Amino acid sequence: MNMKKLQNMATILRRNSLEMTTAAKSGHPTSCLSCAEIMSVLFFKEMKYDTKNPNNPDNDEFILSKGHAAPILYSALYHSGCIKNNLNSLRKLKSPLEGHPIPRSLKWVKAATGSLGQGLGVGVGMALSAKLKRKKFKTFVLLGDSETAEGSIYEALEIASKYKLNNLITIIDINRLGQRGETIHGHNIKKYIQKFKGFGCRVFSIDGHSVKEIISALKKSKTSSKPVVILAKTLKGKGVPFIENKNGWHGKPLNDDDLKIALRHLPNPKLPKIKIKKPKPTKEQKIKEQKIKEQVYDTKISTRKVYGETLAALASKDPNLLALDGEVSNSTYSAEVKETKSEQFIESYIAEQNMVSMALGLSKKGFNTFTSTFAAFFSRAHDQIRLAALSSANMTFSGSHAGVSIGEDGASQMGLEDLAIFRGLSNSYVFYPSDGISTKKLTTLCSKIKGIKYIRTTRSNTPILYKPSEEFPIKSFKILRGSKKDRAILIGAGITTHEALKAHDKLKKQNIHVAVVDIYCVKPFNHSKLIKLANKKGNKIIIAEDHRPEGGIGEMIAKGLSGTNIKIKHLAIEDIPHSGKMKELLKKYKIDSAAYIASLKK
Amino acid sequence: MNMKKLQNMATILRRNSLEMTTAAKSGHPTSCLSCAEIMSVLFFKEMKYDTKNPNNPDNDEFILSKGHAAPILYSALYHSGCIKNNLNSLRKLKSPLEGHPIPRSLKWVKAATGSLGQGLGVGVGMALSAKLKRKKFKTFVLLGDSETAEGSIYEALEIASKYKLNNLITIIDINRLGQRGETIHGHNIKKYIQKFKGFGCRVFSIDGHSVKEIISALKKSKTSSKPVVILAKTLKGKGVPFIENKNGWHGKPLNDDDLKIALRHLPNPKLPKIKIKKPKPTKEQKIKEQKIKEQVYDTKISTRKVYGETLAALASKDPNLLALDGEVSNSTYSAEVKETKSEQFIESYIAEQNMVSMALGLSKKGFNTFTSTFAAFFSRAHDQIRLAALSSANMTFSGSHAGVSIGEDGASQMGLEDLAIFRGLSNSYVFYPSDGISTKKLTTLCSKIKGIKYIRTTRSNTPILYKPSEEFPIKSFKILRGSKKDRAILIGAGITTHEALKAHDKLKKQNIHVAVVDIYCVKPFNHSKLIKLANKKGNKIIIAEDHRPEGGIGEMIAKGLSGTNIKIKHLAIEDIPHSGKMKELLKKYKIDSAAYIASLKK
Repeated sequence: MNMKKLQNMATILRRNSLEMTTAAKSGHPTSCLSCAEIMSVLFFKEMKYDTKNPNNPDNDEFILSKGHAAPILYSALYHSGCIKNNLNSLRKLKSPLEGHPIPRSLKWVKAATGSLGQGLGVGVGMALSAKLKRKKFKTFVLLGDSETAEGSIYEALEIASKYKLNNLITIIDINRLGQRGETIHGHNIKKYIQKFKGFGCRVFSIDGHSVKEIISALKKSKTSSKPVVILAKTLKGKGVPFIENKNGWHGKPLNDDDLKIALRHLPNPKLPKIKIKKPKPTKEQKIKEQKIKEQVYDTKISTRKVYGETLAALASKDPNLLALDGEVSNSTYSAEVKETKSEQFIESYIAEQNMVSMALGLSKKGFNTFTSTFAAFFSRAHDQIRLAALSSANMTFSGSHAGVSIGEDGASQMGLEDLAIFRGLSNSYVFYPSDGISTKKLTTLCSKIKGIKYIRTTRSNTPILYKPSEEFPIKSFKILRGSKKDRAILIGAGITTHEALKAHDKLKKQNIHVAVVDIYCVKPFNHSKLIKLANKKGNKIIIAEDHRPEGGIGEMIAKGLSGTNIKIKHLAIEDIPHSGKMKELLKKYKIDSAAYIASLKK
Repeated sequence: MNMKKLQNMATILRRNSLEMTTAAKSGHPTSCLSCAEIMSVLFFKEMKYDTKNPNNPDNDEFILSKGHAAPILYSALYHSGCIKNNLNSLRKLKSPLEGHPIPRSLKWVKAATGSLGQGLGVGVGMALSAKLKRKKFKTFVLLGDSETAEGSIYEALEIASKYKLNNLITIIDINRLGQRGETIHGHNIKKYIQKFKGFGCRVFSIDGHSVKEIISALKKSKTSSKPVVILAKTLKGKGVPFIENKNGWHGKPLNDDDLKIALRHLPNPKLPKIKIKKPKPTKEQKIKEQKIKEQVYDTKISTRKVYGETLAALASKDPNLLALDGEVSNSTYSAEVKETKSEQFIESYIAEQNMVSMALGLSKKGFNTFTSTFAAFFSRAHDQIRLAALSSANMTFSGSHAGVSIGEDGASQMGLEDLAIFRGLSNSYVFYPSDGISTKKLTTLCSKIKGIKYIRTTRSNTPILYKPSEEFPIKSFKILRGSKKDRAILIGAGITTHEALKAHDKLKKQNIHVAVVDIYCVKPFNHSKLIKLANKKGNKIIIAEDHRPEGGIGEMIAKGLSGTNIKIKHLAIEDIPHSGKMKELLKKYKIDSAAYIASLKK
């Protein structure tokens, strides 16, 4: 399409964006108007994509990190022939054209955006997937200028430079105005140039409303050996005098009268003939398999170590499996993958936010991602994990160093909120193995099932509890001890399962009989099975968990058992934990065998 | 102290760090050895502080962002005369010398560190507090090189430059080695220079083991008009040949034999005479008061608006009150503070992580901070909020745009995890007002009580439910409707309180009587009061909350009521919410009046 026509397309996208948001009576028209030329050149000239198949592996990828500009994306997808929906159904309950882009509603959207500063990390993952699979497609990410204040942007650029992702093109729509006023740097483009050059990118600075300059910057970007950043100086509300470059117009649709006036200010070109270039198919780069011998677990070992060894075994059989880690792979044991299949290990450094977004991008391009760090540090990427869930992603996360059982390092290193974080996602699975066998089985399970999966591992070595043949179905639990005489159930998970067993043995010597349940699957959970069991065991349950009381296993069970007359005692970490030996801390914070026994006797 | 003696002090700090970690049998000696000269010059020459009083408002402040180097900090505090503890009690249960620095144990530590990349944001807050109070003290932050991969570092630098914090000196201990190998840039100092200059800092590059170069860089930094970054090239494990600059020695103490050998490699100087310079007292800059008339609330209004107006009224009376906001102050209404007392409003831009760390720094320097953004976006700063709680901080947070009730913007903008995040902190308070009166009272309450406080506000206007004279004590709830004939309790909070009231009125017409409870205080909660009430109301409770089912009000109540025969129905947001009108979404996700009625009739 020639420049004249591309300019006309930009105008059509502008008109649509104004009409759509007025029809919706909400939305962000001015944020669309500033990037109309950029969107026109990308969708109608630059990008190669199969309008019939959003999952064509050779499609160029586009991520609208400034998700509030959704209307112009929908308009571009409409005119390119990718979607046929009525644009004026924007933001309606029955319409897939939601307020911010979300994959659940539109298959052309790969990642949910709207929590700003996350699109670039997803783009890094997609660009990296092209390198790994030797694919020619490019990844384009459109950022707003306000979101460049988010640190996640610089985490992403650091990794993009490190892995030489010259197939990643970041375009920043510098329209000067944020939601409530001017951005930090306004139109001081120099500041942006310094920052992005400082992060090792090839930087082009252009007039974002010049089709010619956009085309030439994209042309030059093809020869870059570094990630490309195009700084596009634009005007918010461009093209409509009474809103152009004016403050106070963020997230405000025009009323019907203003819309009429606005449309009079804009030309009304006829729709050019549109032809989208389809990408040439490239054949997949096969990564060679390499069998490693299966580990046998018959002696004390830490679940984190078994996680790593199992992952390495899975990686050797599945070239699509990738392990990502935040600079602690020798603690989470994901380093086992690096040692076996180095090309299937992605060092993500201490940048958890980007690590999660990057994993999302990789998973959306067909990789089976396992992302690990200390359980505590997933709180650093909680918002990215939230958006991964909103993106209906299939990803596995593993948090090591759970709870006070890590010992001397102290509170900042203890994962005490991770169960709450991962339980609080739609369609998530939360697993918490207590020994080597269950860890091996559950890690393998995670490589097969869809959704967001979380595996919580423990730092210290724990005894083997199960036979190698034991199966660990989703939505179930194990009864490790039980007799007709039981008058209560001691419930444990991970480290506390072993404390429950110790308590059982001590109590037995005193001729007090209790059952012991191991909750290896925290979510989903089979409450009715537990209720039936409790009814036979004196309707008394004692739960100990190495986690905060809020949002963990205790509250999950309490809710499932509400209305029954089953008495629940919940032992969890209430205070800010101190440094000390594991044994001392389990005792001090009352989740050890003695605490089980004391609360049973109360 | 002269250079010779400073070098000797560095050696003594090294010897102590090795001995302490060997005694503890855990810890990070090599990470201490790389910064020994830096710590020596800072604590024994550069910094002015009152060794008798860690809270002397004129003390220079020091933050060890690389918290795992805690031993060398404790050693420096010991030799400066600030603490008298036995250094070899490091990491013991009864010792205040914890694995990572934490204020609860040591008053010389202002902020918990150990989750990397957070110390600089705290430093930004402290440096900003000096500017606001016209104090002369400087803030020094020591970073590791690995943690410069964290985006929060760049959020902090951006804000430090924006607010011209030339009283903030960041020193980066570039020892090349991270936990599991080399950092992204290793000893390529050029890369660091580019990045930090790009963020508008004055950058000095020095040999981090040269006392002379450290002194001269600190001298030059005094004339800088910009934030200062000192890039100190160092060697991990410096001074002990068999660990110096060697990989595989992160977080590993020496065994007794290796310690003996190591100490032989180091000189054994006698302790120099130590004299710490005490800062000159400066008198506080009084910020002028300015009364504004109290608002009266007698008609439909959004709780977020009342939050902002109340905050503005409080700010006008209290010069120590600060409002921070993440570029959405016109949505959270914290902009009201800006309009009334602009000098008490800190624009933090879209950088939630730094906003929270900065607020922590400000609060530790005596400001009463109120930090606001969309409820959803506190998930972006979950780790910083966690560390604020570990820092025993007194801070208030307010999240607007809670839940699906925001309407058309869609899932990424809906706060559905915030109650779980803020409930899951030690000693936190969680408030959820449903009308203007309760919002005004609870916001005022937050300005008075200590701890981490959270106020959840709602986007849309809601009717007034209470008299201006109504009081809202902590750990209580309100019974809005009740009669002898009640056969159940409808529990609401925020938006759902109004749905419960609608349900009550509809049911009354059908001659079905129910009580309505408004949970304005989610944490702490008075379960026994609710149990007594439920016993009089048919032992049936229906709870609807505009939040995920996990970690919210339903699980909180279910746990508190476990073992009773009170039946609980819990209505919450299970799925990924769609865009739509508020009314449509409350209905679709079954937390509206109809849902209350339907589940009562089941």
